[in-house]
Amino acid sequence: MIPPLNPANSALLTDLYQLTMLQGYYDSGMEETAVFEFFVRKLRPGRGFLMAAGLEQALEFLEGLHFSSEELAWLASTGRFNNGFLAQLETLRFSGEVHAMPEGMVFFPNEPILRVTAPIAQAQLVETRLINLLHFQTLIASKAARMKLMAPDKLLVDFGLRRAHGAEAGLLAARASYLAGFSGSATVQAGMQFGIPLFGTMAHSFVQAHDGETLAFEHFAHAQPDNVVLLIDTYDTEAAAQKVVALAPQLASQGIRIKGVRIDSGNLAEHARQVRQILDAGGLRHVTIFASGDLDEYALRDMLASGAPVDGFGIGTRMDTSSDMPYLDCAYKLQEYAGKARRKRSEGKQTWPGRKQVYRSYGADGRMAADVVTVEGDVQPGEPLLRQVMRAGKRIAAATLAGSRIHAETNLAQLPEPLRRLQEPCDYPVQIAEALRRLAQQVDRESSNL
Amino acid sequence: MIPPLNPANSALLTDLYQLTMLQGYYDSGMEETAVFEFFVRKLRPGRGFLMAAGLEQALEFLEGLHFSSEELAWLASTGRFNNGFLAQLETLRFSGEVHAMPEGMVFFPNEPILRVTAPIAQAQLVETRLINLLHFQTLIASKAARMKLMAPDKLLVDFGLRRAHGAEAGLLAARASYLAGFSGSATVQAGMQFGIPLFGTMAHSFVQAHDGETLAFEHFAHAQPDNVVLLIDTYDTEAAAQKVVALAPQLASQGIRIKGVRIDSGNLAEHARQVRQILDAGGLRHVTIFASGDLDEYALRDMLASGAPVDGFGIGTRMDTSSDMPYLDCAYKLQEYAGKARRKRSEGKQTWPGRKQVYRSYGADGRMAADVVTVEGDVQPGEPLLRQVMRAGKRIAAATLAGSRIHAETNLAQLPEPLRRLQEPCDYPVQIAEALRRLAQQVDRESSNL
Repeated sequence: MIPPLNPANSALLTDLYQLTMLQGYYDSGMEETAVFEFFVRKLRPGRGFLMAAGLEQALEFLEGLHFSSEELAWLASTGRFNNGFLAQLETLRFSGEVHAMPEGMVFFPNEPILRVTAPIAQAQLVETRLINLLHFQTLIASKAARMKLMAPDKLLVDFGLRRAHGAEAGLLAARASYLAGFSGSATVQAGMQFGIPLFGTMAHSFVQAHDGETLAFEHFAHAQPDNVVLLIDTYDTEAAAQKVVALAPQLASQGIRIKGVRIDSGNLAEHARQVRQILDAGGLRHVTIFASGDLDEYALRDMLASGAPVDGFGIGTRMDTSSDMPYLDCAYKLQEYAGKARRKRSEGKQTWPGRKQVYRSYGADGRMAADVVTVEGDVQPGEPLLRQVMRAGKRIAAATLAGSRIHAETNLAQLPEPLRRLQEPCDYPVQIAEALRRLAQQVDRESSNL
Repeated sequence: MIPPLNPANSALLTDLYQLTMLQGYYDSGMEETAVFEFFVRKLRPGRGFLMAAGLEQALEFLEGLHFSSEELAWLASTGRFNNGFLAQLETLRFSGEVHAMPEGMVFFPNEPILRVTAPIAQAQLVETRLINLLHFQTLIASKAARMKLMAPDKLLVDFGLRRAHGAEAGLLAARASYLAGFSGSATVQAGMQFGIPLFGTMAHSFVQAHDGETLAFEHFAHAQPDNVVLLIDTYDTEAAAQKVVALAPQLASQGIRIKGVRIDSGNLAEHARQVRQILDAGGLRHVTIFASGDLDEYALRDMLASGAPVDGFGIGTRMDTSSDMPYLDCAYKLQEYAGKARRKRSEGKQTWPGRKQVYRSYGADGRMAADVVTVEGDVQPGEPLLRQVMRAGKRIAAATLAGSRIHAETNLAQLPEPLRRLQEPCDYPVQIAEALRRLAQQVDRESSNL
């Protein structure tokens, strides 16, 4: 019997080395508390900030962590692990603490956004899936936030499920982009799962299946009388706009009002201008124009700068794959074990050791001014960004998606002007506090002979 | 009650417009047979070929397609659909035919790799998830195949789950890369789910958690005596290689043989050379060197061209996100409805109409020579690449992953030399047959007044 694809949050969504290391910890009796932190090492040139997302799914995963009996039987069948260790896995649950930045918070490289404090086996095992969840949603929220900054007053809808990397990517991209300020998504499952508003029109195939574009428009209007958005680029965009004008009075007499048209190919700005003229001349000033096809923040900026009369955008592939930056250079690293701060010194991948906190200061205008990263307990001026969200393996307080979305909006409003640029944003000042530098030196001295 | 994340293959893994169009088909009594085909429109410069993958998951999805009672209740609660239509959805199953290229087959733009023939509601509804499944695995298999071509005799292991776009992406990337010729994956769930061989070593955190690198190596060796691969770059790579040499006799006396070392940072080729010298001088010629960190086909080519003594590679992020090309310009388009061929004429997105077949000819050397795309029934010389794989909603014959992997290997061996280049590959000749051109003209004439 083949197990279903992607059992939600299986404990086996991990790398083999986590389990082989756990066997090592078990055999050596190493079960002290470990502290791991998740952070992004650096940003690609042209990107100025990141937006934290994925915490909700990360906490869900930790709360539900366990090995099923089928999984344990399969692990035993590999012959890689001894019975004592497998018995330990059977009872393994996550019992640790988590501190994190709330979802929707703007952050910068070298700032931890999540810290796990737990017996080392637990904290180690969850590395792979925690990175997997935090990385992707942070990637997408950060991308979507750039689009929201470019088109703050437009309808922005996620259209990306089909070319997202699998089903979970599509669902979580819908969530992350909504969190960052999008109006909603076309992904039906995301509506059911997360309560995200759904948007949709029609596809070219609907028009093609009919013997005549006007007939397709009529059928669609009667089937969705409250949401008549007609796709007009299947054959000839401007000719179809004329058909919409011609059809409108008949639909109006049946009580159906055309809400909008969608353009999905060609020079979108130029078509939008011509279609706007046709609709206005035909008395359809209230009909909105929705554009889609190969859009991203650069295309939004250019179209809006050119004054294209577009009211909303469907944004798919380039957001759901974060196509200009499809991954973040992020890590989840051991910072402390058995009460001692630890540091990796691999070339180009050194980390700051110890449990950390980030403090943010704001200017007189309410905008973010500077951050300081320091060791926990070294209180600095400003707002501490990491808060405890889980105690003894249980969430302390659940954030709502609506609440996180407002938090994201507030954070984007607090972004300094130079960081809003799509290209060549200024570097935001992130200072490493003296206390953290001293700790790093101390760790290096103590570990120089490891 | 929140449903679990990503219920495998929910019928709601679709765009809202599929359901609004289905409501339109229902209201208009449109239930004739539709033919849709999935194909890639064009390749990015620098890429010469694609490898088909994802068919197995696509067929699984079609066989299991249904709406659960919770999903139907939720759809009803949105108020968007009428009761007659919802009753139709309740009994909706996929009862159509599928023709497809087998997984592992090399293919080119404008060649359909999958054709669905079914009542239009069924064929339309499944568009989003079919694209989602075929696009991603084809993307990854095509990327992994390039790495296999660069390093045909090396151990290639997928390390990408953590930065793949969600859990399903990680699982399916493990599958697609294995299909394309990788040796295996680090993703444990992929081992259980697909029977893919698993590989793993240790992380820096394991070394850091110990008070001493040698102690960490000892503990790991005892915990995994049959798979002792030691990570040596946590502090100083060459110094750690000396520690491995020093430790080997003691382990040997306990019957444990060190199998390999892993290097994960710095100049991998240079470190590999120095480490090889240290190991050889210490009598450890049998110990292999495994490299990881920011690898892709370009890095493999350069390292192997420089003669770096590396025996295997762990390849993660850049493969699992296909980072230089994170999506394909692919589509699933209506080609026929109610017996009449159809064609979309949107600017820059015209499609070839009708049910199609692809024929491939081979040269005297057994290598692929040219493809012809034509209408079904217009028999051409060469091998027809699309075969029927599903009848009345049931799979005709199940391919095994092992079989598909062999098929991929055979196909890569048949690639003409110029297509193996990483950059500036030659264009492979894909001819549009006269019969297909005539059909397109005929469709244009008949539909010029739609």
